[in-house]
Amino acid sequence: MIKNFQELLSHAKTLPTKQVAVIFPANEDTFLAVKQARDEGIASFLLVGDERRISEGVRKVGVGGDGISHKYVQNVEDALLQSVTAAREGRADIVMKGSVDTSTMMKALLDQGAGIRTGRILSDIFMFEFPKRVHNKFIMITDGGVTIAPDLKDKLELINNAVEVAHALGNENPKVALLSATEFVHPKLPSTVDAAELTKMNERGEIRGCVVGGPLALDGAISLEAANEKRMSSPVAGRAEILVAPNIETANNLAKSTIYFAGFALGHVIVGGRVPILIPSRADKAEARLHSIALGVIMSEYIRKKHAA
Amino acid sequence: MIKNFQELLSHAKTLPTKQVAVIFPANEDTFLAVKQARDEGIASFLLVGDERRISEGVRKVGVGGDGISHKYVQNVEDALLQSVTAAREGRADIVMKGSVDTSTMMKALLDQGAGIRTGRILSDIFMFEFPKRVHNKFIMITDGGVTIAPDLKDKLELINNAVEVAHALGNENPKVALLSATEFVHPKLPSTVDAAELTKMNERGEIRGCVVGGPLALDGAISLEAANEKRMSSPVAGRAEILVAPNIETANNLAKSTIYFAGFALGHVIVGGRVPILIPSRADKAEARLHSIALGVIMSEYIRKKHAA
Repeated sequence: MIKNFQELLSHAKTLPTKQVAVIFPANEDTFLAVKQARDEGIASFLLVGDERRISEGVRKVGVGGDGISHKYVQNVEDALLQSVTAAREGRADIVMKGSVDTSTMMKALLDQGAGIRTGRILSDIFMFEFPKRVHNKFIMITDGGVTIAPDLKDKLELINNAVEVAHALGNENPKVALLSATEFVHPKLPSTVDAAELTKMNERGEIRGCVVGGPLALDGAISLEAANEKRMSSPVAGRAEILVAPNIETANNLAKSTIYFAGFALGHVIVGGRVPILIPSRADKAEARLHSIALGVIMSEYIRKKHAA
Repeated sequence: MIKNFQELLSHAKTLPTKQVAVIFPANEDTFLAVKQARDEGIASFLLVGDERRISEGVRKVGVGGDGISHKYVQNVEDALLQSVTAAREGRADIVMKGSVDTSTMMKALLDQGAGIRTGRILSDIFMFEFPKRVHNKFIMITDGGVTIAPDLKDKLELINNAVEVAHALGNENPKVALLSATEFVHPKLPSTVDAAELTKMNERGEIRGCVVGGPLALDGAISLEAANEKRMSSPVAGRAEILVAPNIETANNLAKSTIYFAGFALGHVIVGGRVPILIPSRADKAEARLHSIALGVIMSEYIRKKHAA
């Protein structure tokens, strides 16, 4: 099982080379991420964008040569279309956001005709490293990026998407906590009711490949000490590896708290589509971008093997 | 302005002694918190509960004598009634949860006849110390404890309640961030629309005593670096001192992340009622309980002065 980003990067390097289509690269951070990932042997890149900006960016950070190709287009819309086409035709294994608005990009990717959809929900899996001195494990948070207010059926898909990432990392039976503000089921707080129902569905075998528990709040989900003090008996309590939030605001802010409050290392990827999608935030550090690319590579290989099987 | 818990404890000690009614104390953590706060001269206590359990608890942790009185009752319901009556009649300045379920307690306190209500919403203000090496300031998060899904009017009251706490700590014009999952206004994400409206209301002078900004996600709210990278111009961006969450799940889990992920020092108090209400969590450490009692003392004095003025 891959337990931290060092192991994740090492593992990505052992896989067949994956090609990342970068949609309209235009700022230095993007070219730096491309250079670093190429230099470390994590992936190769197809830069889909404006000729002048690509030439400038490539020259500025020195990222020409092996593992870098390009396709020049007139504008962002063409870059989106060409990148999606490359993904559909197998010339790109992963797509990555450059200088394009996230919602514009997601709209293009989610478009029925675009061919990235598989019938599943797309969802963002944010992953951070719970420090070695405490745990040495990954914890995932979802969905802080795509689904605004998931209903019960959506949550089922959010669970399955995150579980797929855990499986790809070798965690065969991840512990999934359904977050709310309390561990009690209150009819007035719908997230607790959904959580109880999803936990039951897992017990009945309707959700597989994981152990689901909830409702839980963060303390009961990730702290064994808090779980014990509250006398919780769920196998997930205190040991959660995947946190499924009841809404996008909880997931987004909780994920950001691990960066801006706790200073943990992170990576994130959107799964559920034909290929993994990377949406580096403007505020993502170089390290986070590299982790995310490696995560995309591992997910791409996992999807390929699953389809081949 | 009080900027950290050391200053907060020191300040609480300088105020006229406040009496805390403890509702059905029965476990050791409660008696230990009472002892520590009494010994440090933060407050005096009225223990309202079962005779045998109080006698045992007092003996076990050695908290008899000065600053401790008791009222024996038969059960939790009587303890609630007596504590609320003590608060209404001015014999208690603060009420604190002992071994009683939070929702049972809040129901009793919120009861129309109970006399704790003032017509305002009650809301939980969670406060943590943003470490000295970075900021040396408090940041508040609300409401992770009482209001499940605040509407626009509720959010207005949540802002006012938190701003009152900031004022009590000497921060005369706190910066309030309205959290969502993004800094853009999207009609499909109602929390962004509410945030924009509340920001406008503040600009028009309909919300006073603070500067409101939003929608913001955590990065734009508390990281100047992220705010600059995203080219935000709001005076709140990167400098928020109060985070108003769009729902109870976001506030609750974000607050817990500062404890369980970041390890920050914390305190919390429920305001909006006739007296401050303390609801120590079973998982709260002794330090957090002491901070919360001191915060209750400061709020009690602030409310008294405001009414006297």
